[in-house]
Amino acid sequence: MAKSDPATIQIHSLPGIPLIEKGDNLCQLILDAIEANKLILKDGSILVLAQKIVSKAEDRLVNLKTIKPTARAIEYSVKTDKDPRLVELILQESKNVIRYRQGVLVVENHQGLIMANAGIDHSNVEQDPENDWVLLLPENPDESAASLHNELLRKTGSKIGVIINDSIGRAWRNGTIGTAIGVAGLSSIVDLRGRADLFGNQLRVSEEAIADELASAASLLQGQADEGLPVVLIEGYPSSSQHIPASELIRPEEKDLFR
Amino acid sequence: MAKSDPATIQIHSLPGIPLIEKGDNLCQLILDAIEANKLILKDGSILVLAQKIVSKAEDRLVNLKTIKPTARAIEYSVKTDKDPRLVELILQESKNVIRYRQGVLVVENHQGLIMANAGIDHSNVEQDPENDWVLLLPENPDESAASLHNELLRKTGSKIGVIINDSIGRAWRNGTIGTAIGVAGLSSIVDLRGRADLFGNQLRVSEEAIADELASAASLLQGQADEGLPVVLIEGYPSSSQHIPASELIRPEEKDLFR
Repeated sequence: MAKSDPATIQIHSLPGIPLIEKGDNLCQLILDAIEANKLILKDGSILVLAQKIVSKAEDRLVNLKTIKPTARAIEYSVKTDKDPRLVELILQESKNVIRYRQGVLVVENHQGLIMANAGIDHSNVEQDPENDWVLLLPENPDESAASLHNELLRKTGSKIGVIINDSIGRAWRNGTIGTAIGVAGLSSIVDLRGRADLFGNQLRVSEEAIADELASAASLLQGQADEGLPVVLIEGYPSSSQHIPASELIRPEEKDLFR
Repeated sequence: MAKSDPATIQIHSLPGIPLIEKGDNLCQLILDAIEANKLILKDGSILVLAQKIVSKAEDRLVNLKTIKPTARAIEYSVKTDKDPRLVELILQESKNVIRYRQGVLVVENHQGLIMANAGIDHSNVEQDPENDWVLLLPENPDESAASLHNELLRKTGSKIGVIINDSIGRAWRNGTIGTAIGVAGLSSIVDLRGRADLFGNQLRVSEEAIADELASAASLLQGQADEGLPVVLIEGYPSSSQHIPASELIRPEEKDLFR
């Protein structure tokens, strides 16, 4: 992109995606919604999917009533004042407990994501009197994204970027922001080191977490409450189609000063 | 926004903003660029300004050659292998040192932002043989944003959201993302607690850091290298005009588990 070119990124919501159930074909439901909203997918289009619909399609619902907490889970449930069955699931989904206190259990999940409750969610899950459902993250969000990217390529002939995002908290800042947990068909991170700034000086530290910025942009339209807008289409972002998955956004433990 | 309404957010770059110098009237330069790009500002428009141009207009350039490091700065410069004059400035701009190691000095600045080098930047600063310029963050970015918001209101009659963003690193993730350091004319954070999810369940934990998501969205077009696109216009985001400044995005120390 030349510096004098005006550019516009468009972020479209996609009303009309139905409630997702186990085994639903997300690709087809999205293509239907694209058509119903008179939009067009093409090379460079980016679809951002809320983690919840991917998890539901992949049958990641668990009934807490079926969970028997271990002694370790009971110990953390007392320390955090959380449901011991939920804590058991959080620990099963995690490599390490990073921090805890009353009401808070921050863990590193098996993908390396550091987040509260291993991303397990009670909200936007249909409840019934017999059961107590919670929703886990997709087992491998990068693979989920890659699989959807490939299916979209087969069905549309276009190379479409796919991001699975979740609303994740931060160390030092209030509120969650949309964050990329699975990425395919675009570069999650762009390395600007070695490029020159406006005055020809070499940039020293400059990696930009593009997929996280796109995930946050999409989150502005997805909402977290009853909006029911889990898929967002981003057009006009001049992304590289070089594939760098979301796992590359995770700082390796040996370089992490904050765990 | 009703859940079935389609919505589109547009993010426009604004080519044609000149290199900013001390004392420049940013408001007028932005209004000129808006007109040159045939765009229109109205109630609910959001302007996102890269911190660098605000700092330059506010004369936050410092010549390292004029800085005499204290003993404390020299101590940290040895521990981090950084220029002792730069470390002196970083410490002057900070309340606390949070972490350090070879090449890294993470501090809490006077606004409470936790970031490397107190946000002091060598890049995109014009250098000359006699001096060694670096650029500090604006002294009070929320005030800078409020002042621009008010000037825009006087000149256009419209209530325009203003965000000053910077590219900031995170605790556990690689790469920087655009982050809101100054906000006026919109709500930096939205509290969704008490709202119902799709199935009528109460949401438990849900504050969304809207201004950070908008700051990240804008960063996609601003670039960090030689793009020269420091101002971005966001249209179509249904923001509340309730004023909640960026300072509300900073987690208070007593609730922070990661310092």
